[in-house]
Amino acid sequence: MTRARLRDLGIQVGSFPTGPNNAITDVPGVQVGHFTLIEDQPTVTRTGITVVLPRDGAIGSDYAFAGFHRYNGCGEMTGIHWLEEIGMLTSAIALTNTHQVGMVHDALAEFSFTHDHYGAFYLPVAAETYDGWLSDMNAMPLKREHVFQAVLSAKSGPVAEGSVGGGTGMICHEFKGGIGTSSRVVTGKSGTYTLGVLVQTNYGDRKALRVDGVPVGMEIGYDRVPGPWQVPPQSGSIIIIIATDAPLLSDQCRRLAQRATNGLARTGGYGHNSSGDLFLAFATGHHIPAQTDEPISLGVMLPNHHLNPFFDAVAEAVEESILNALTAAETMTGYKGRTVYALPLDDLQRIMAHARGAIA
Amino acid sequence: MTRARLRDLGIQVGSFPTGPNNAITDVPGVQVGHFTLIEDQPTVTRTGITVVLPRDGAIGSDYAFAGFHRYNGCGEMTGIHWLEEIGMLTSAIALTNTHQVGMVHDALAEFSFTHDHYGAFYLPVAAETYDGWLSDMNAMPLKREHVFQAVLSAKSGPVAEGSVGGGTGMICHEFKGGIGTSSRVVTGKSGTYTLGVLVQTNYGDRKALRVDGVPVGMEIGYDRVPGPWQVPPQSGSIIIIIATDAPLLSDQCRRLAQRATNGLARTGGYGHNSSGDLFLAFATGHHIPAQTDEPISLGVMLPNHHLNPFFDAVAEAVEESILNALTAAETMTGYKGRTVYALPLDDLQRIMAHARGAIA
Amino acid sequence: MTRARLRDLGIQVGSFPTGPNNAITDVPGVQVGHFTLIEDQPTVTRTGITVVLPRDGAIGSDYAFAGFHRYNGCGEMTGIHWLEEIGMLTSAIALTNTHQVGMVHDALAEFSFTHDHYGAFYLPVAAETYDGWLSDMNAMPLKREHVFQAVLSAKSGPVAEGSVGGGTGMICHEFKGGIGTSSRVVTGKSGTYTLGVLVQTNYGDRKALRVDGVPVGMEIGYDRVPGPWQVPPQSGSIIIIIATDAPLLSDQCRRLAQRATNGLARTGGYGHNSSGDLFLAFATGHHIPAQTDEPISLGVMLPNHHLNPFFDAVAEAVEESILNALTAAETMTGYKGRTVYALPLDDLQRIMAHARGAIA
Amino acid sequence: MTRARLRDLGIQVGSFPTGPNNAITDVPGVQVGHFTLIEDQPTVTRTGITVVLPRDGAIGSDYAFAGFHRYNGCGEMTGIHWLEEIGMLTSAIALTNTHQVGMVHDALAEFSFTHDHYGAFYLPVAAETYDGWLSDMNAMPLKREHVFQAVLSAKSGPVAEGSVGGGTGMICHEFKGGIGTSSRVVTGKSGTYTLGVLVQTNYGDRKALRVDGVPVGMEIGYDRVPGPWQVPPQSGSIIIIIATDAPLLSDQCRRLAQRATNGLARTGGYGHNSSGDLFLAFATGHHIPAQTDEPISLGVMLPNHHLNPFFDAVAEAVEESILNALTAAETMTGYKGRTVYALPLDDLQRIMAHARGAIA
Repeated sequence: MTRARLRDLGIQVGSFPTGPNNAITDVPGVQVGHFTLIEDQPTVTRTGITVVLPRDGAIGSDYAFAGFHRYNGCGEMTGIHWLEEIGMLTSAIALTNTHQVGMVHDALAEFSFTHDHYGAFYLPVAAETYDGWLSDMNAMPLKREHVFQAVLSAKSGPVAEGSVGGGTGMICHEFKGGIGTSSRVVTGKSGTYTLGVLVQTNYGDRKALRVDGVPVGMEIGYDRVPGPWQVPPQSGSIIIIIATDAPLLSDQCRRLAQRATNGLARTGGYGHNSSGDLFLAFATGHHIPAQTDEPISLGVMLPNHHLNPFFDAVAEAVEESILNALTAAETMTGYKGRTVYALPLDDLQRIMAHARGAIA
Repeated sequence: MTRARLRDLGIQVGSFPTGPNNAITDVPGVQVGHFTLIEDQPTVTRTGITVVLPRDGAIGSDYAFAGFHRYNGCGEMTGIHWLEEIGMLTSAIALTNTHQVGMVHDALAEFSFTHDHYGAFYLPVAAETYDGWLSDMNAMPLKREHVFQAVLSAKSGPVAEGSVGGGTGMICHEFKGGIGTSSRVVTGKSGTYTLGVLVQTNYGDRKALRVDGVPVGMEIGYDRVPGPWQVPPQSGSIIIIIATDAPLLSDQCRRLAQRATNGLARTGGYGHNSSGDLFLAFATGHHIPAQTDEPISLGVMLPNHHLNPFFDAVAEAVEESILNALTAAETMTGYKGRTVYALPLDDLQRIMAHARGAIA
Repeated sequence: MTRARLRDLGIQVGSFPTGPNNAITDVPGVQVGHFTLIEDQPTVTRTGITVVLPRDGAIGSDYAFAGFHRYNGCGEMTGIHWLEEIGMLTSAIALTNTHQVGMVHDALAEFSFTHDHYGAFYLPVAAETYDGWLSDMNAMPLKREHVFQAVLSAKSGPVAEGSVGGGTGMICHEFKGGIGTSSRVVTGKSGTYTLGVLVQTNYGDRKALRVDGVPVGMEIGYDRVPGPWQVPPQSGSIIIIIATDAPLLSDQCRRLAQRATNGLARTGGYGHNSSGDLFLAFATGHHIPAQTDEPISLGVMLPNHHLNPFFDAVAEAVEESILNALTAAETMTGYKGRTVYALPLDDLQRIMAHARGAIA
Repeated sequence: MTRARLRDLGIQVGSFPTGPNNAITDVPGVQVGHFTLIEDQPTVTRTGITVVLPRDGAIGSDYAFAGFHRYNGCGEMTGIHWLEEIGMLTSAIALTNTHQVGMVHDALAEFSFTHDHYGAFYLPVAAETYDGWLSDMNAMPLKREHVFQAVLSAKSGPVAEGSVGGGTGMICHEFKGGIGTSSRVVTGKSGTYTLGVLVQTNYGDRKALRVDGVPVGMEIGYDRVPGPWQVPPQSGSIIIIIATDAPLLSDQCRRLAQRATNGLARTGGYGHNSSGDLFLAFATGHHIPAQTDEPISLGVMLPNHHLNPFFDAVAEAVEESILNALTAAETMTGYKGRTVYALPLDDLQRIMAHARGAIA
């Protein structure tokens, strides 16, 4: 089955225009890199690492205002004590599997200390979701060199989605999930800015899946696409990264991160008990040099009463990013011969066309 | 136009059964009282007070575990420093207008000190939304006796909805809003429990209003129902109160409160900048005597991995409570001759029937 | 007994220089006003209101970055949901007694809507401590006009301390407490700034009182100064307000507020269960117009690695403010003929001289 | 120089009695294990791992209520999103150096999956402080087997202090620091309970060091004991672990954790910018089985108004734990030939005797 992005299927959520690549990389300076490890020997591995680099990587020497929101805490995202203390992102962001988030954390720090361009990642941000259904996660197959590769491969432009990088072995709404991205261009009284989102999706019941309000998941039975699974506890999660070039301050970033809840709710994410639903937003519009002995000149900030379009754009871009992960990811067979099926695009189009006809 | 509850219109959101009154009062011991003030002299007043009393009122001597979530903070709910410190609700809850939340706060305390049955409300919970569009709010028309009346009138059983009590002058999604309520019965491995919600709705754009995913608001133009308004800043808000008789602890209550976001998102609440979106959940399943010199015997707690049905029930009950406020509230003319129109029920039914037909 | 400020007694805590008045008003634009109500008829009243006004009062139209810290939550400080949401102070601050904090809240809002100079206090900050031991608090003797008076009387320059304003009936470490203030001048790589503190003290056991580390409270027995009291539950509390003209952002203000804990700990404040220990810091170095349709120009911010002197200065100024409240307050007889005794200054000087001699 | 514990020197802080070992292991079921790595080849290594195991290790199958407080966030402690979400500790706790906290995190999880006794550490708690001054931290000398060794060596009884385990290379108040521990027995209306503390100390200026209020640090000049150092940024930190067998709930644990600030403040800890001051408290008095399909029976809880002695005991035990780290740690020479000197015990005794004489 050929996969697609949601908009290629004629389905559009929300009303803001997207950036040129409809990706988090539409935010100037934001780069994404994937390292994907798919092997059947010596063990069945379906895992990887996705990195998001602000400032073309140099975030360790030029901090960005940032905020965090925990919708449900059954997951790990390191570096948040410091991020919340000073309201800034000071390191690259890496997404991976549950059992190697620590290795990735250490490797991000180590990498930065040997690569001047990036500054120092003293307290790096590494987050995880669980891929143990499709991958022999306990084998801990990822190595620090893989983290370095992911960072060094990061670039702007189009972003690979679906079963790639940290999203390789993930499952979403009982379909194959993974990495998704989307962007919005927000034009208001304060100017024109880009906002981008990248998600690693690994949560959700099928019956809860909605697309633009339409209960698509309930229309695709287990007879049509096999399921459900008895996945282990602590299995769900979604990590959401939000970037913007608007000159937002830390509280404003936190408010953006919290609004990701809105986009997640629209697709049917309920913040279930064993889900690690952790959201991080950063804004590159201000520059905060890591090392300086002078007061730091700030430019403008946006008035809080200009933020509503950003709040709405976050919800739209999160919703579309999740759906892009679903429409991009292909059916995958992995550990112990388990198969997780892709969301059937023809069903999706048919259901949406039917529902849209009813409204219009 | 005769008003109705959502289910009377043949529209059902969610899948859990409701309690007998589909109201927060389905939770045993929870009482609701309204005081409504609608006068045109000496000034145009459309305001009031709604109280929610756990424990048949005696919450000041028999505390309940509780939790709070702030989705957006442009509003006031007093008593939260203490509620979050100890994870307990220790007072009655009152909802009113913005400019008199302080008076209501003081009056709740005063009332408790002279009415033994209630225990002592040292740090009472009073919350507000803004009704200055339809009511001469600056006249501060409510008196402490009105608070006492609201408390003394509280009872179990059916709850009046729409333009009543604290919700009298409220506006929601550019239709007449106010008080709404709903309940769910949750049966799981841990037993059968009731969960109820009461909302005071005063937020939202019309175009964002959705009912069970259907974009109802976009289908009802300003030519059909007049709008929009230029309401003043700080005008939006929704207060959500969640009650359950399940033996939940404080963290579990906080998690419930946070899931209200999900129900709000489904109806089109975006947590806009000037909205005070403040959510409080309490659980009556444990009893914590205010005055004791002995360790306190607790009964059972529910395992966290049994909470998902409660999370889902919160989302459903919040969604239905908001919609009940909209279907109950009648068109109102108030301050300066302004009219806010009710959501037309025939339009709602027609749009929903059409959309449902398409899915089924 | 003539009362004094701590430094007048030859006792100095900390090493930073103070501002000209050693008061929160040393921060340019910060004004303090007191309204004190001491009456024996119709009932025994020992209460009042203290207001802190940034921007010469105009804080409702020109917001300031701000942060909050709760050391213990058994108290009320309104307006914090909004302050934490946007990281800004948008209103005057008022301190009063427990049962009238709501009235003071409403009155602050009302005042602002009728006095253009102040901007609009939509969600005002009103905080309280309990004075029911010395004052017939249930009589609710304060009126809205008293709040207006406190605001209108606010001025820069020296600040009255001890049994004045909101501090009139307060008790601290089992001596007479009340209002205290102090300031520090911080000179570092980022320039020279002033930091000021004002406290309303109403907490603490005598035996825990320390002055610059010396266990003064243990040296002054109940035979020397009568005590202890069986004050009612919920009786303790300290409200701490920190102001600076440094160009700090919201997270930096929150960090300052949290460091007040340090100063409180030094004097023997333990954050006991029934204490409302609520701390607020604001910084006037940036100007954020409440009403604007343009992006807001910010000036410089201080690097976080320049903050340590501010952290230390907060601890020093909080410690000295508390001690100034104790050395300023005179013995008071009030409700039901109860007397609370002042800290004896000669004892204090003698104990400190002895201890200092030992070290030096 | 022979080292000692504070009490062996005739110096006592606080008034509560200690447990039999004056150690966190006085709390029944709490075990401590150290792995210490001191090597000069292939590189100079002064580092290690300290683990704290509740429930004789079986914390992954029998959770404990717990709470967290961040005094300053420039550090890492993993597992806190989940700990705060459910208010429980679900894993062992490990303390180590900054650059290997990730490895230790992964190893704790891996260990638990292969050792049934411990249950599953899905989201383990690993925390760090910086030892790069005395140890070649970038060499990342610790291996997963070392983590396993630390866990397997954990035992009750006396606890080694000073330059051991995670504290091996640490520096405190410009003297040699490391691991310290202490305990208190709290007897009140709710019964008799033990509270224990373990700290990994790596923060502070010498001049700020106080012992029971006496400014000891100012009395020991750099001529007497060499210093100061230009240690790198992000170098300070203190991790504080608090355990009790009292049947406290999560909010009560969080309150205990927050009171650690008090003990830290007494010794001169200011929460400086680059310090990771992260505090965790857990209570073993309740048992929460990780895997159950039944509601969980709880026993008694302590009324919040019985907590003050626990708050005071935390402050005392934290203060003494820090001082025990200082009196236990010996002068150490490490990386690049640098030497960090022990606090001279004779000076300490002399200064304290002098000061005490003055008071008594």
